[in-house]
Formats: sequence, C-alpha cells, structure tokens
Amino acid sequence: MTGAVFLLFGATGDLAKRKLFPAIYSLYREGKLNDRFAVVGLARRPRTNEQFRQDVLDSIQEFARYKADDDAGWASFAEHFSYMSLDIHDVNGFHQLRALTEELDRKFDTGGNRLFYLALAPELFGDVSFNLREGGLLDTSGYHRLVIEKPFGYDLPSAEKLNTQLRQVFEEKDIYRIDHYLGKEMVQNIEFVRFANAFFEPIWNNKYIANVQITLSETVGVEERGGYYDKSGALRDMAQNHMLQMLTMMAMEPPSRLHPEDIRDEKVKVLRSLRPFASAADVRANVVRGQYAAGEFKGKTLPAYRAEPSVAPESTTETFFAARVYVDNFRWAGVPFYVRTGKRLPVKTTEIVVEFKNVPDNVYLSRKHTLEPNLLVFRINPLEGIYMKMNAKQPGSEGVLVPVALDLCQSSKVGINTPEAYERLLYDATRGDSTYFTRWDEVAHAWQYVDQIAAAWAELGAEDLVLYPAGSWGPQRAQELLAENGFRWWPVNGQHEGEVEWETGTKAEAKVLR
Amino acid sequence: MTGAVFLLFGATGDLAKRKLFPAIYSLYREGKLNDRFAVVGLARRPRTNEQFRQDVLDSIQEFARYKADDDAGWASFAEHFSYMSLDIHDVNGFHQLRALTEELDRKFDTGGNRLFYLALAPELFGDVSFNLREGGLLDTSGYHRLVIEKPFGYDLPSAEKLNTQLRQVFEEKDIYRIDHYLGKEMVQNIEFVRFANAFFEPIWNNKYIANVQITLSETVGVEERGGYYDKSGALRDMAQNHMLQMLTMMAMEPPSRLHPEDIRDEKVKVLRSLRPFASAADVRANVVRGQYAAGEFKGKTLPAYRAEPSVAPESTTETFFAARVYVDNFRWAGVPFYVRTGKRLPVKTTEIVVEFKNVPDNVYLSRKHTLEPNLLVFRINPLEGIYMKMNAKQPGSEGVLVPVALDLCQSSKVGINTPEAYERLLYDATRGDSTYFTRWDEVAHAWQYVDQIAAAWAELGAEDLVLYPAGSWGPQRAQELLAENGFRWWPVNGQHEGEVEWETGTKAEAKVLR
Repeated sequence: MTGAVFLLFGATGDLAKRKLFPAIYSLYREGKLNDRFAVVGLARRPRTNEQFRQDVLDSIQEFARYKADDDAGWASFAEHFSYMSLDIHDVNGFHQLRALTEELDRKFDTGGNRLFYLALAPELFGDVSFNLREGGLLDTSGYHRLVIEKPFGYDLPSAEKLNTQLRQVFEEKDIYRIDHYLGKEMVQNIEFVRFANAFFEPIWNNKYIANVQITLSETVGVEERGGYYDKSGALRDMAQNHMLQMLTMMAMEPPSRLHPEDIRDEKVKVLRSLRPFASAADVRANVVRGQYAAGEFKGKTLPAYRAEPSVAPESTTETFFAARVYVDNFRWAGVPFYVRTGKRLPVKTTEIVVEFKNVPDNVYLSRKHTLEPNLLVFRINPLEGIYMKMNAKQPGSEGVLVPVALDLCQSSKVGINTPEAYERLLYDATRGDSTYFTRWDEVAHAWQYVDQIAAAWAELGAEDLVLYPAGSWGPQRAQELLAENGFRWWPVNGQHEGEVEWETGTKAEAKVLR
Repeated sequence: MTGAVFLLFGATGDLAKRKLFPAIYSLYREGKLNDRFAVVGLARRPRTNEQFRQDVLDSIQEFARYKADDDAGWASFAEHFSYMSLDIHDVNGFHQLRALTEELDRKFDTGGNRLFYLALAPELFGDVSFNLREGGLLDTSGYHRLVIEKPFGYDLPSAEKLNTQLRQVFEEKDIYRIDHYLGKEMVQNIEFVRFANAFFEPIWNNKYIANVQITLSETVGVEERGGYYDKSGALRDMAQNHMLQMLTMMAMEPPSRLHPEDIRDEKVKVLRSLRPFASAADVRANVVRGQYAAGEFKGKTLPAYRAEPSVAPESTTETFFAARVYVDNFRWAGVPFYVRTGKRLPVKTTEIVVEFKNVPDNVYLSRKHTLEPNLLVFRINPLEGIYMKMNAKQPGSEGVLVPVALDLCQSSKVGINTPEAYERLLYDATRGDSTYFTRWDEVAHAWQYVDQIAAAWAELGAEDLVLYPAGSWGPQRAQELLAENGFRWWPVNGQHEGEVEWETGTKAEAKVLR
C-alpha cells in the first residue's frame, strides 16, 4: 500500500474503540499496513497523545484479534497515533489540523494521502466536509477519501441533500459509504460461490429456485439506542442497507468484469428491478410491520419496546420488518425473496437460504417419500459457513430418504481467524477498492424502494402494526407471508433442524490428508 | 416377511463363513428375519448339526456386526440351522434333502418357500438346478428362488449356456444373480441422490458434466486365487460386473417407477448404448491392459504377478484394466466415462467422481484464479460418503479462491453401523425384490461389450500388455487416456488432496441440534 494519514473523527466513540482501532492493529500485524501511516484521533474532548494511545491499547487488548504483547513492538506502533481536540464547527481548528497532518505526512512519508473517517452523526458530515476543504486539508497531491457510516439519510430527499453536501467537496469515487455487512466474509463469498462454481450458475434462476429467504435476527432490544432507533426503525436501520445489499448480492447478474464499478452496476440493476408497490394496500399485503411487546425468553422477562428508555410510550416504530420482495427481471420473475429482520427474536443470526424447487411431486420418489426441497444456505453471522441440504438414503434402510447436510463451516475450522468486516473494509479503502462500499445510486434506489413502504405506513397509521412478544419470531403474519405461496421460513442456525443428518465427530481420514 | 427354508450350498466355504452366516444373524437380530426360517447347510464334507452350528457361531463371533452374547438367545437362533452332507451329483441325496426340507417346512411354518443359495463354482449351477427339480425340491406351492454368485460365465456364449441350463429349471424372475457391489450402501444411494434432489437432475448430462471416473482399486495381489484369476483377469473379474453396474447406476435415465423391472430396463438401455469398438486398434486406443511386475510398497517387496502361486510364468492375464467408455445417447454424447480397476495398487478404494465442466475459462474469475472444476464424489468403499468439491473464497483473503469440500461422510458418523452388502441382498431376495440383482439381459449385454475387448486382446497377443510395478497406480497409459481429453484422474480417498479445505474439528453447534 501507499502511505496515508487516517483522520479519525469520533475517535473517543464506541465504533473507534470496538472496531476501528482493532482493525488498524490487525492490518498492521498482518503486514497489510506498513509503517507509512499515521492516525489522528479527533474529538471534542481534550486528550493527550499518551492518553489516546492508552485508549487505543485498551481497545486492542479488549477487542482485537491480535493482542499487543510485545512492548517494543507496541511502542513503535503507538508512535503513529496522535490526538487533537477539535470543534468541528470551527474552521480554525481545521487549519491547525492541516499543520499537524502535514507534519505527519512528512514524518511518515504518507505521500499526501488522506483518509477521513467520519465516525459521527450524519448531520455533521456536511459541515465536516466543508471545513476539511476550508481548512486546506484537501490541498495535497495525494488521495482524499471520505469514509462514512450509516445511516445515509432518513429517506431519499434527506439522503440526496446529504449527498449534495458531500459532493460539493468530494468526488463520488472518493466517497466510501460503509455497509459493514458487505465486509462480512460470507457475504463476500456469495459472488465467489456463485461465479466460481459451474454447479450453481445453471440453476441460479426462476426455473430451479423456489424462493430466497434472508434473515437478520437480533436477540437484543433497542438498548441505549432508543432515541435514534425510535426515529429510524427496522426498515431504515436494517432493511434499506444490509438486507437489500445482501439481496442484490444474491440476485445480481454476473458482472462482465470484477471491477468495482461493474459489480456495483449489476447491484443497481437489481435495485431498479425491485417490483414497486402499487398502493398502501399492496404494501400491507407484502410487508409485515411488528413491534415487540413484553415477553419472556429463557425464563427472563423482557420489557416491551414502548417501555424502553428514550422510546415514546405510544411509539409506532417497527422493531420487526418482513417483506415479500420480487425482482422483476428475466432471471427472477416469479421468485419471491423473503426478508425479515427484528429485535428481540429468539436467535441472533444472519443467514440466507436458497430453496430450490423440489423434484416433481408426481414422480415416484415423492409418492413414496416426503421429499424436502434442496437448500443452499449461507451462514453469515455468527457462524460462518455454507451448507447444502439434500436427500439421501438412510444408511441401512430400504430406501428411507432423509435430509442430510453437506456442510462447510468456516468458523468451526482449526486455525481460522476470520478478519472482522471493518478490517477488510478499511483495508479496501486504503487500496481504493470500492467494491464493498455502497455507491450513491445504490443508496438512492434503496431509499426509493423503502420510502414507498414508509409512505404506506404513514398512510395506514398504526393500523397494520402488529405487536409480538419479545423472544418470539415476530408476528404470525410473517409466517403467513410465506404460507401464502406454499412456503415456510426454514429454521435458522440449524435450530429445530433435528431431522437433518449433521455430520458429527472428527474425521480421522480428513486429517491425514493435510 | 413370509417364512423360508434357505438351502445353502457350499456351507463349509469361505463366503458362507465370512458373509452369509453373519448376514443371516444380523437380519435376525434386527428383526428382518422372524422365527419362520430354517437354514440347511449343504456340502460334501460330513458334519453334525452341532458342528455346523458351532461353525456358524464361530463365523458370527469373528465377522458379524452383532455378537452372540446371550446363550439362550443363541440357542433359539441356532436351532434353525441343520446340516446335511450332500454329493451334488447324486440325485438320491436330493430326495433325502427334500424330506429334510419338508420337515423343516412344517417345523418352522415356512410355507413351502425355498431359497437356494449356490455358493459354488458356476460349473455346478446347472447340475444342482437339475437335481433340485429331480429331487422334488421345487414341488411346493411356495416360492423357489435361486441365488447365485459371480462369475456368470466366462464370455457371452458360456453365460448363455449357463443361463439356458438354469432357465430349464427356474424362471428368470426367480433367479437372483448377486453382484455384491449393488448391495453397497453408496451404490444404492446413487439413484436417491440423483432422483430425490432437484439440484442434480438439471445438470446431470453432457451439457454440464465433463467426465465420470470410476475407480475400484485393490492393494492385494492375486493371493491364493491364482488358479481362478489367471483364467479370468481384471476385465472379467471386475469390469464385466461391478464396474459396468456402477456405470449404469450413474448413467441411467430416471426410471418411470421404482419397480425393479423398470430400474433394470433403464440399466439395460445404458449397456445397449455403450459405444462398440470398431477394431482391435480401437480397443487398443481406448483400453489399458496392465499386469503387475515386482515392485515395492511401503518398504515391502512385492512379487510379480507371474511369480504368484498357480499363475502361469508367461501369463498375459491382466491385473489392471482401464478404459474410456462412451454412452452414446442424448444425455451422455461426448462425455467419457473412465473406469479403472486393478490389483496391487497403492490404495484400496471404490470411488466414483463426477467432474463438472468448469466455468467458462474466459470469464474474469478464471483469469485471475486457477479454478478447479466442481466434483461430486461418491465414496463407496471402504469409506462411505458423498462430497462435493467447490470453490470458495479463502477466509480473510482478498478474493483468493480455494477448493473446499462440502462433505457428508457416513462411515465417520456416530452410531452408524452400515449393513453389509450381503445382508441387504439376502434380505431383498427373501422379500422378492430383485432391484439390486443382475437381470439376464444386463449380464448378456455386459458380456457382449467385454467380449469385444477380450477378442481384441486375443488378436493383439501380448502386444498391448503393459507391466506396472506392484504398488503403483498402473501403467502410465492409464493417465494418458484422460490426458488425451484434457483430464486427469482425481486422487482417490482424498490422497494428495492437500489443496482441499476439509472441515476438521467437531462442530459444537451441530450436536446441539439433535
């Protein structure tokens, strides 16, 4: 890599502590970040360089994949970190920052490259951008990249406004919009599994696939984020970004090249093909809007969403969202994509299930046996892996068919220490690879789709909001959505998959091979 | 099941001891054989019932999946066994046998059903059959089934002669020709995997499959069977039956029903579609004929075939056979089926590899990566399982693609005690299910195909016989056979599969599911 100064806004915040410092350290330890880098921590709070370096160390010892256990090594790493207290509304501070950055530029030979990481509330993105320019931070010959976090707006108009502000300072190619789901190992693996295996391309269409199910379930409630969440809700917080992004990865046509723009072009094509909703009634027929009520889970009583801190007691914000989505193109015509996400569900998991059409049910095997359809499952989080569920003869039986799982589980593998999504994305940003960042037109199309739902909900009032007990799988209506098409949600994380023959035990022969 | 008397010819032989007694016992222990059965052991040697029962017990304790550890239980099982010394050329003995059998019929309420199991040299099948009829053994109202072992003839004319003899006494529907490979768990699973999974049928043809590789390798030499083997050779001993049977299971069209005759009809269609050889030169171009020379394996010196006991010192008998076989029908046009079998090879295994056509090599992923083709592998023996080799992103890499194995390994599974092939086949014979027995027209077509090769070899003399060192993978020519089409033999049993990411370690989450 070429060198760079990372200007980290929000350096005393949670994201920096939990994700960014550990990511920088892992990259450094793996040699993906050489010595030509500097990090400037920026926040309002006063902090000495030493205090800041201690923050970084604490964060790494608690959250990083690698631990800092070599004092000399740590010292030479920590030396790259500086801190500066900054009022982001005061351009004078930015002039000072410019001086500091130029000094670091020289000291670490970073070639004038700057990566501005805004771990800040989106309302501040515009001001910071202007001040970066005003303060002269962009007056170098190196690259100037802006990395920003979600949410990118609240709806299409606000996103457009935000984007306009950024674009007055940065070019689209230099804006790296993070959707950390795109940094996840198994989300990135979708395109490789699809396009590097001759198995799948021939059957990856409406002729062979019955439906696709995308689940992103959380067990937590709204926690301390009630203030933000109550304005956002599951639709904006999860569906507009992560869920639609995963959907595009599954549905996109093979790009003509592996170039970032080609891949993102294909993703935009999927978003453009999403079937629009004709009316509020149409939304109501295809979308489930739920909110958790008090409930019980594993013997623990859980409060209702409306009883959470900073949540309006009459709130109609959805904590559960499910939808039947159609991609109206040649490949996917007629294949429902079911998505669901929610808080206070029984399991924390992110999983994509491809359900294949079953063998014809009038053919002999189906007459004698209850044949389950074949599944291809991407397990994204917390377990990482792929499995295929297929039918085989039960050993020793006379033709009793049982579902069996051909399984590749990454996270259960010895010696694998999967990089964190942020590590990968930060690395990509330093390399200028924007593949796994969201381009503006993706954001815009996603908002356009989501805004129709939000508008219908506004029209319907609380009419279609369904309460579900915390700790359950959401409103019954989410089951009906599939049942209407003759389908059902496949159990996630293998729960209740008692009927599947999972391979267990170690395989002596497999070890011999290595 | 209905009752039956099993008349076991060759009751003092190796097959009875190693396979048949254990199979009968396992069926009994699993309740697949109820108390309405009797076994009459028949051989020339004099033996009391008590001695015979002791033979049976010894066999079970040594070879059976279940052990006889309950004295009372054993006594009531052993009571079903009688022995009679019989000269099979003397019809008087058969009259006696009739009396004994009728007595057992009454005692065990077997309804006049008789299953004649001929664990004898094929030369004797005709005489025994005639004497069974002459002796009045077929004069009951129950079924009369004949179970016979390979070899069924030496070539088509001798097989026809043998068949004619049998058919003078038994109907085709009552002749159960054992090919014990058809009793193997994973061979039977081929049809279920193919027809119970929507995954495979769409890609099971020449559009998506590049080639099929069938390996049946043995590490043993000719051992004490030199006399028989030197007249037979790998072509007649293995290829005519087991290998062509496995090929038909892989290649057959879906039968219209699961009825035995429908399945066997489809297998015959495959045999009829085998591309004939135009000339001896054509055989030479597509067939490899090898014989093991002295060699060394794992530090042990191994003798040449010609130095084995009862083998002619100038023998040209093949101990290795490989061929490129084409099934000239719509489904398989242009797809080579490579088969190979041999003695003194480095690994004992039976495995079928389906190699899929690779993704187009001018598409981006292939330009940046060396993509291995997808494989679907049936592991038949000694490991039982299925695995798929596919490409996925190496965890933590930036798009490094590695082959990974989605694996279901039956024999490594806890609590699975797979029935022996003989157990299954014997059970099928008692139930009258002939699916996994070879019908006469299958035998005839297989001989017709194999006879062309034998004829060419006779014409060529020893000209195309290639010696290979014992302990090697046979003649180099067997590699060239595939290389000529741009392929290679995939390593069996996972050997040298170091590049495949096998899943290792136990999966905690999988255990939770049960």
